Amino acid sequence: MPTLAAHTDLIQAELADVIDVFDREIRSDLAFVNDLTGRIRAYRGKLLRPQLLLLSGKACGELRPEHITLAAVVEMVHMATLVHDDVLDEADVRRRSPTVNRLVGNEAAVLLGDYLISHSYHLCSSLGSTRASRRIADVTNTVCEGELLQIANRGNWALNEDIYLEIVRRKTAALTSVCSELGAESSGASAEIVRHMAEFGMDLGIAFQIVDDLLDLTATQAEMGKSVGRDAEMGKLTLPAIRFLQRADASGRERLINAMSGGANGDELQELLGGGDAVESSMDTARSYVQSALQHLSVLPGSDARDALAAAAEFVTLRRQ
Amino acid sequence: MPTLAAHTDLIQAELADVIDVFDREIRSDLAFVNDLTGRIRAYRGKLLRPQLLLLSGKACGELRPEHITLAAVVEMVHMATLVHDDVLDEADVRRRSPTVNRLVGNEAAVLLGDYLISHSYHLCSSLGSTRASRRIADVTNTVCEGELLQIANRGNWALNEDIYLEIVRRKTAALTSVCSELGAESSGASAEIVRHMAEFGMDLGIAFQIVDDLLDLTATQAEMGKSVGRDAEMGKLTLPAIRFLQRADASGRERLINAMSGGANGDELQELLGGGDAVESSMDTARSYVQSALQHLSVLPGSDARDALAAAAEFVTLRRQ
Repeated sequence: MPTLAAHTDLIQAELADVIDVFDREIRSDLAFVNDLTGRIRAYRGKLLRPQLLLLSGKACGELRPEHITLAAVVEMVHMATLVHDDVLDEADVRRRSPTVNRLVGNEAAVLLGDYLISHSYHLCSSLGSTRASRRIADVTNTVCEGELLQIANRGNWALNEDIYLEIVRRKTAALTSVCSELGAESSGASAEIVRHMAEFGMDLGIAFQIVDDLLDLTATQAEMGKSVGRDAEMGKLTLPAIRFLQRADASGRERLINAMSGGANGDELQELLGGGDAVESSMDTARSYVQSALQHLSVLPGSDARDALAAAAEFVTLRRQ
Repeated sequence: MPTLAAHTDLIQAELADVIDVFDREIRSDLAFVNDLTGRIRAYRGKLLRPQLLLLSGKACGELRPEHITLAAVVEMVHMATLVHDDVLDEADVRRRSPTVNRLVGNEAAVLLGDYLISHSYHLCSSLGSTRASRRIADVTNTVCEGELLQIANRGNWALNEDIYLEIVRRKTAALTSVCSELGAESSGASAEIVRHMAEFGMDLGIAFQIVDDLLDLTATQAEMGKSVGRDAEMGKLTLPAIRFLQRADASGRERLINAMSGGANGDELQELLGGGDAVESSMDTARSYVQSALQHLSVLPGSDARDALAAAAEFVTLRRQ
């Protein structure tokens, strides 16, 4: 999704408004709380989910004040999940900065995540109807389920692709899907267009997570700007390892499982997985989700915003960080 | 609040409905998730917040379906805070059962808390308007601030009563206050009555937390059914210790700070604090909040529900667990 940044001129004013709304929402009368939320500024990155929501809105019609609110809401939800994820993963680095748990301890990090999720609902319920609140809460229910399903399958060497994809759909793609869905819906798009946009966001999110998991195996911390190799260390099987285990002989399986059980580093895993086609076939799967995403986009009339969404989808399998 | 249980015949059918709504809301299609939520059944205890909401509604008028939904929402919020609190406090026992973090690890406990809070908003946004969602999210913002303020003051031996009470108001009493407020409001009570009921819940919550903090010092784990002496171990100053430190000479101060810094056990602290009037004067403060709560109740017309609320308030300073 990073090339979305190349199209931010389409939604530059709106993104500035999103940041304003975000910052106003999380402001507290307590200095300690503001100090803590100040630390996650470094997490903000490229505001990919707000961009997805705004570009989807623009590709389907006019942007309205509701889009700004919702874009701030989804970013807040995303940040909350990042903060709690880093606690769960015991990660030390995120966007080239120390993580909140590293800086202030797990307790403050748990509470900061709670604070962000609480404010996301608070902001969302400032809208005229409960409809978006209900959808957002439905998605956060699903995100929690995805994370729990992932934990339940930690160290499960028999994890299959169906369950892996179910985890990915719930923990990552449900949120990107609701971005494009609510973006379209808030522009008054038809039910059919809204459905296609929800599918677009779902496919995009799945492709994005598959690539993210691949990069966790193949990239360096310097390239990624966050801790890498954590999936393996935490006993999380991702697509290339699942495919490797399906195809390997007994000794190959044993080597990979040993490497992952012992907290393998990236080099060992790259060596093991790089030999076959596990990495390349996983990337092919990501590419097929991108193609599916592009097909859903094709129901929209041509526009700069639609082109930006298509370019973003195509970039997912090209990114190196 | 435990004597509320003596008055549950007033709201018995409604409490059963609340449990049904609660259980239906948190049900997942994932067995692992249902297994996890099944573990917090033991936490449920006496449903004090739902009772407070329902009795407040009944004392102000007729109970409506909205009361049932809101009562399940506040219980879900409360349970989420318990689950995350136990992670923060590293507690092992809650309501005579092992805590979730003890049973399944901190990671699943963090996610289970997230799951519960997400479902509480999901349930709340099933109501016709965003009004209650907005209030509930406002309260959860405040609860997080209270918890963060408490963490920021851990090991702060200069903590004063004003900050202690601010922590108590935000982390505990904001939620009990919104119970009686929304209970009254949903029965169509006047703005003035709603305000008094919000104050009633606030005073009740403050008294309850002061007593809870006292019992953490003076009760045994067997009496309380949960880990005790954790406040001191975690460097949390509560009212008796604050008053002791204000009044003690240099050597007394030093002894208490040493005891708390070294992770004192209940016996040592009871011995130190029991000598003066720190414990008794803290109980007096709790009693004065109960009196204030009763005054707010007096604006209501006489009813069994009002009597039940008054009895509950009076019991706060009598309970021994």
